[in-house]
Amino acid sequence: MPENNRQWILVKRPEGPLTDDCFELRESAVPSPRAGEFVVRNEVLSCDPTQRAWIEIDTYLPKIPLGDVVRGAAAGKVVASQHPDFAVGDAVQGGFGWQDYCVTDGKGPLGALKLPPGVPFETALSLFGITGLTAYFGMVDVAGVKAGDTVVVSGAAGSTGSLASQIAKNLGAKVIGIAGGAKKKAWLTSDLKLDAAIDYKSEDVAARLKALAPKGLSVYFDNVGGTILEAALDNLAIGARIALCGAIAGYDDHSKAHGPANYTNLIIYRATMRGFLVLDFLDRAMEAVGRLMQWSGEGKLVNAVDVAQGLEQTPKAFRNLFTGGNLGKQLVRIA
Amino acid sequence: MPENNRQWILVKRPEGPLTDDCFELRESAVPSPRAGEFVVRNEVLSCDPTQRAWIEIDTYLPKIPLGDVVRGAAAGKVVASQHPDFAVGDAVQGGFGWQDYCVTDGKGPLGALKLPPGVPFETALSLFGITGLTAYFGMVDVAGVKAGDTVVVSGAAGSTGSLASQIAKNLGAKVIGIAGGAKKKAWLTSDLKLDAAIDYKSEDVAARLKALAPKGLSVYFDNVGGTILEAALDNLAIGARIALCGAIAGYDDHSKAHGPANYTNLIIYRATMRGFLVLDFLDRAMEAVGRLMQWSGEGKLVNAVDVAQGLEQTPKAFRNLFTGGNLGKQLVRIA
Repeated sequence: MPENNRQWILVKRPEGPLTDDCFELRESAVPSPRAGEFVVRNEVLSCDPTQRAWIEIDTYLPKIPLGDVVRGAAAGKVVASQHPDFAVGDAVQGGFGWQDYCVTDGKGPLGALKLPPGVPFETALSLFGITGLTAYFGMVDVAGVKAGDTVVVSGAAGSTGSLASQIAKNLGAKVIGIAGGAKKKAWLTSDLKLDAAIDYKSEDVAARLKALAPKGLSVYFDNVGGTILEAALDNLAIGARIALCGAIAGYDDHSKAHGPANYTNLIIYRATMRGFLVLDFLDRAMEAVGRLMQWSGEGKLVNAVDVAQGLEQTPKAFRNLFTGGNLGKQLVRIA
Repeated sequence: MPENNRQWILVKRPEGPLTDDCFELRESAVPSPRAGEFVVRNEVLSCDPTQRAWIEIDTYLPKIPLGDVVRGAAAGKVVASQHPDFAVGDAVQGGFGWQDYCVTDGKGPLGALKLPPGVPFETALSLFGITGLTAYFGMVDVAGVKAGDTVVVSGAAGSTGSLASQIAKNLGAKVIGIAGGAKKKAWLTSDLKLDAAIDYKSEDVAARLKALAPKGLSVYFDNVGGTILEAALDNLAIGARIALCGAIAGYDDHSKAHGPANYTNLIIYRATMRGFLVLDFLDRAMEAVGRLMQWSGEGKLVNAVDVAQGLEQTPKAFRNLFTGGNLGKQLVRIA
């Protein structure tokens, strides 16, 4: 056990793409719990696109104050407790941040949740965490996918996209995944068993969508925004549903963040674009976890994780989300 | 009765804003009906924003071929018939185009409909036509307005907007209208009895929305797009519904047509943006007409029409839609 608590502190807001000098690795004493609190030894940190917003701007959560530990999901073990519901040795996940140790009362937007025995932290933070739940409720509720749908997923080799694509397949849809690079494209059909894949770096996405889905997309699950959203809007079927999960193309490089120029195609195709946050569905988490566990057990759901090693690698691993460096869920094992 | 049929022919597609030389007024013989056809003497022409798209591009209908009469809704009387369902003297409305006489089989996307006795053509083409039905289904079905909603309508002094605003009031909502100029702004509260109004030409729309609806908009009915859509997206309530009816800001001047830069607010506010076409609701036209007639009879629905005089004025009257020259529904009386 480290004697000190190493913490990644947000010291500067990015101007343009995220740079190393926005963060500083500082050491402080390992915290002790007061009444109603417990201390977690983080073992795995989760890298999520939404953190990019928290670093810079107020959204559905206030931005991270300068001087604070970088907010984020993590999983680990309780090492000290004065909280009635959490005991030393409990495996937990929650909003424990980019640090070795977190002292918490278990409240706050990301909360704290005891993990059932036998679930690896990597799986807890991906398939059964925010990522899996986002993919599940996005496809089942927001997009309302059913057999016969033609579903396109952008960021399909990423954390949410890879699960969302497979969930749509399991719901009976034809699924086309979009990702960057030949390797990811091949993986989408070979490993995830999607019906087709598009490499946006080397192919004309709009033309490929037209060829692969001549009758149009009935569902588009968007993780990226930008020109790929525009390509999807140009290839909708009448009555199409767009589930807006994210817009990562513009998170780090704002010059790529623009509204879809052809959004009035929503009128022509009588289509619906709906934004969602998984936070609104957390009361039904057990439904999602049950179904994801079932599909996973039946071999119908590949849960890909991309694990960096060491707390000091966290900012670099996080940047993979914006450069396309990760396959599946980006995590950092720190202990 | 004119001896010839004067027709506005589309001779050029606009490059940039619409200009007079896109149309040519030509004369030809008054047509005669063949078996299954009838001839209508148009008396009132309807000016609708969607025609601007038909003039230039393929949308939900193919663009108007060069050399054809400008497609558009009109109302008049049957003056010759070889059609079993239409007799000389019948009052009708349909897709009769910018011309004195139309020969038709009554089919096609805008169809042909016999009017009940006593309904002025001006009312048939506004309150009980595509305009009123668009406003009705947009508010009732697409936006799902109910008592307690805070509803904002752009283009609120225009044809659809003025009716949509009042329909939302009649459904029990608080309604804020947005229009251009002091005169229109005053009219929205004095004549239409809306709760509040904003003049987008002299006021900061986003700031005014924030002040007038501090808890956010639960519904936004958009006729204009552009920066006003962005102002609305910055002021949504959680779970807001946006009914996308049109985007007139960019129809004539494409430099003002851009995607909403802040469309990812749909995620933050878990909001839905749904495009619609009234064509999908025409099987329920009688429901809408019945309700509109009732509200109108109770004095709860002002039907404003702005009527130009003379067929030769049609292109000029049509351009009012894009310069904000009209109050309520723009029509042209040609006989």
